[in-house]
Amino acid sequence: MASTDSSTNKISIGLLGFGTVGSNVYNLIKDQGLEIAQATGASIEIKKILVRDIAVPRQDAPPEIFTDNFEDILDDPDISIVIELIGGLEPAFDYITSSLENGKAVVTANKQLLSQRGFHLFKLAREKNTQIKFEASVAGAIPVIKVLRESMVAADLTSVYGIVNGTTNYILSEMSRTGAKYRDALANAQEWGYAESDPTEDITGKDAAAKMAILASIAFHTAVSLDDVACIGIEHVSSTDISYARNLDLTIKLLGVAKLYGNKINVRVYPALIKKDHPLATVSGAYNAVFLKGNSIDEIMLSGPGAGGIETASAVVSDLVSIIVRREPGAHENVAAWREMEFYPDDEVISKFYLRLEVKDEPGVLATIAKVFGDHNVSVESVIQKDSGAHAELVMVFHAVREASFRAALEKIAELSEVKSQPWPIRVEGNGNEQQ
Amino acid sequence: MASTDSSTNKISIGLLGFGTVGSNVYNLIKDQGLEIAQATGASIEIKKILVRDIAVPRQDAPPEIFTDNFEDILDDPDISIVIELIGGLEPAFDYITSSLENGKAVVTANKQLLSQRGFHLFKLAREKNTQIKFEASVAGAIPVIKVLRESMVAADLTSVYGIVNGTTNYILSEMSRTGAKYRDALANAQEWGYAESDPTEDITGKDAAAKMAILASIAFHTAVSLDDVACIGIEHVSSTDISYARNLDLTIKLLGVAKLYGNKINVRVYPALIKKDHPLATVSGAYNAVFLKGNSIDEIMLSGPGAGGIETASAVVSDLVSIIVRREPGAHENVAAWREMEFYPDDEVISKFYLRLEVKDEPGVLATIAKVFGDHNVSVESVIQKDSGAHAELVMVFHAVREASFRAALEKIAELSEVKSQPWPIRVEGNGNEQQ
Repeated sequence: MASTDSSTNKISIGLLGFGTVGSNVYNLIKDQGLEIAQATGASIEIKKILVRDIAVPRQDAPPEIFTDNFEDILDDPDISIVIELIGGLEPAFDYITSSLENGKAVVTANKQLLSQRGFHLFKLAREKNTQIKFEASVAGAIPVIKVLRESMVAADLTSVYGIVNGTTNYILSEMSRTGAKYRDALANAQEWGYAESDPTEDITGKDAAAKMAILASIAFHTAVSLDDVACIGIEHVSSTDISYARNLDLTIKLLGVAKLYGNKINVRVYPALIKKDHPLATVSGAYNAVFLKGNSIDEIMLSGPGAGGIETASAVVSDLVSIIVRREPGAHENVAAWREMEFYPDDEVISKFYLRLEVKDEPGVLATIAKVFGDHNVSVESVIQKDSGAHAELVMVFHAVREASFRAALEKIAELSEVKSQPWPIRVEGNGNEQQ
Repeated sequence: MASTDSSTNKISIGLLGFGTVGSNVYNLIKDQGLEIAQATGASIEIKKILVRDIAVPRQDAPPEIFTDNFEDILDDPDISIVIELIGGLEPAFDYITSSLENGKAVVTANKQLLSQRGFHLFKLAREKNTQIKFEASVAGAIPVIKVLRESMVAADLTSVYGIVNGTTNYILSEMSRTGAKYRDALANAQEWGYAESDPTEDITGKDAAAKMAILASIAFHTAVSLDDVACIGIEHVSSTDISYARNLDLTIKLLGVAKLYGNKINVRVYPALIKKDHPLATVSGAYNAVFLKGNSIDEIMLSGPGAGGIETASAVVSDLVSIIVRREPGAHENVAAWREMEFYPDDEVISKFYLRLEVKDEPGVLATIAKVFGDHNVSVESVIQKDSGAHAELVMVFHAVREASFRAALEKIAELSEVKSQPWPIRVEGNGNEQQ
């Protein structure tokens, strides 16, 4: 029983880039043609594909639709939607701006670009009365952008947080599961294709920071760019910490957190210890999960595969469908920043901390260290002291404390001759409800 | 920096029902007016509210907007959207059909009505070129209907399953947490307002079945109604089973499962034992969680509060926003059943089972029982035998087996003189990836 509305018109699309995601988009549009036609009343055709070298033989698509000249797509009046999957700042920025200027709608998965020049693009799309959509830029197939934009209008959101980088979650999951050291877990992730040969963007937290900038902007209707997001990566997470954490019934995750403090916003990325029975603790491997917390919704979680060619392609096709069913952008399209907000200083944030220190194994060391914390109003919740050969090891968990006070105490601690290791504290998050 | 588009036009709404959800909708529209205006370019006004008795004093809204006559809303040409929150089949069905017939759009939270007469309403909305939306009918504030309709077009879904009834999840969570008996946990849920004084709809699984009928219809574009969903409730779940399950590292949940077998569909509701590290195991209390599994998305989970006045109201307002930003329904609106599918027979489904039996404590009983299962090709994975006073207790877990074979074996088992208890088997689900 086919609907009478299906396939009444044809939408032509220009695709920029034909890597894993690009070829998956191409195939998905072919394979899911009936579903797409039922959902949109249109048939979709990828008319041209921009690649660097058209001489490379490609199996999925006929050779005549490939081009190495962007103008072939830009100047084709049939092409009403451009899908940008080449990544990076340039020439992607140039291609997207000229597409929007020509009135074409744009779908992109480019988180780097959006987190740095998104507002320019949103503004341009608005001026040109067209649309830019970017579901695939954050959390793969998980429809968090659509949910934030369209289902959370009355949610009165207060925070958005979660695991938004699959590579680091895979590495931390492996370290937790097998007891592996960071270097070995990273090498393993590279071998299995979960980490790039240059994993810097992921392990430093920059990739997560870009995604959090996008999520925070959409959730709180204000301009948050990559530079506004302080981030700590996972390079200093040690297998020793993970093993101590396990004994405390905690597990480690790289979290992105965007949170309102009154009418100010704070967005950060950092490794955190969370309770084993928190829903985030069950998000393992390369999966992502995003929590939306708001006064009218309590707390909603969306989780799923954070990346992957077919999953990201599925998000791109969803955007395509959304654009086609609403050719005229509604008032809410591209209005990503109608509110100006100040940033809440990192120093003022209240957190619990975990800290492991190698110290000289001699009387009075704990008293000395405890005094420094006490002098800074940092209150110790629990201490474990353990011999580890030449030194002793102190594992301390602190009550919630103003970040600036904790950092000041740490500076003093690092200067003590009794302390033998660089202190790398890790935040401890409560359960979902304590996350404010 | 207010957008220039905001508040340029006014949308008048008629609200049917002013209970907990209704008054929350009223207040949410007032409180979130700026957000709604930014998202829609319109200001929303609740113009009239239908209640049974207008004489009852109400604090939230001015008395002059209440009416006890539905015609006041139906015949008001200003009112373009009707929100139905009275529930039940009649007069809700009558109100919704006449609203649609008059070209008004409808938002409803009425799962009973949708799961029994949804297709009539979808068809009518389509004929009248208007919209009916029902996010609040399933899983409260969790935007699963929108995600299914708009983000899963290319997902190639194969199953939709999860926890869709908060009352039974609260009861089962309490039984697991405290070891309480079913009756006591139910009484506790009633005392805390998590269960109604007549909890039949919830504990028999009928409420979950209605929601699964709606989810299956939308996910697979076919007509599934309440009568098509076989359901088993939680009345026979005993604290003894929960305690045995804990020793097997399993926890119990009432699951709704809609699944494709080739081109046939099977939709059911039943209590199931799941592994403690499965994400569903962390969904506790009155929370809901829905998994979407598809060839292009792997597996996506959405979880959050399944009910609650403010959360349900938030879903209603999301629908309102969706209707306003797309005044002309797209081709995909209301096309909930463009595919005719056969049902896959319950008898053919392959499942693992757990079974506890009280048996006579004498030699040869286990052999007798094992032989009956063996004769029906039902293979035992593990057995625990325990003395419990006069009788012995057998706790058996079976390898995956065709349902009909297992049921046939059970019938024989129940007839044995050695067996002292009515056998209530419980399905055992694998982890997410084995769930097919």
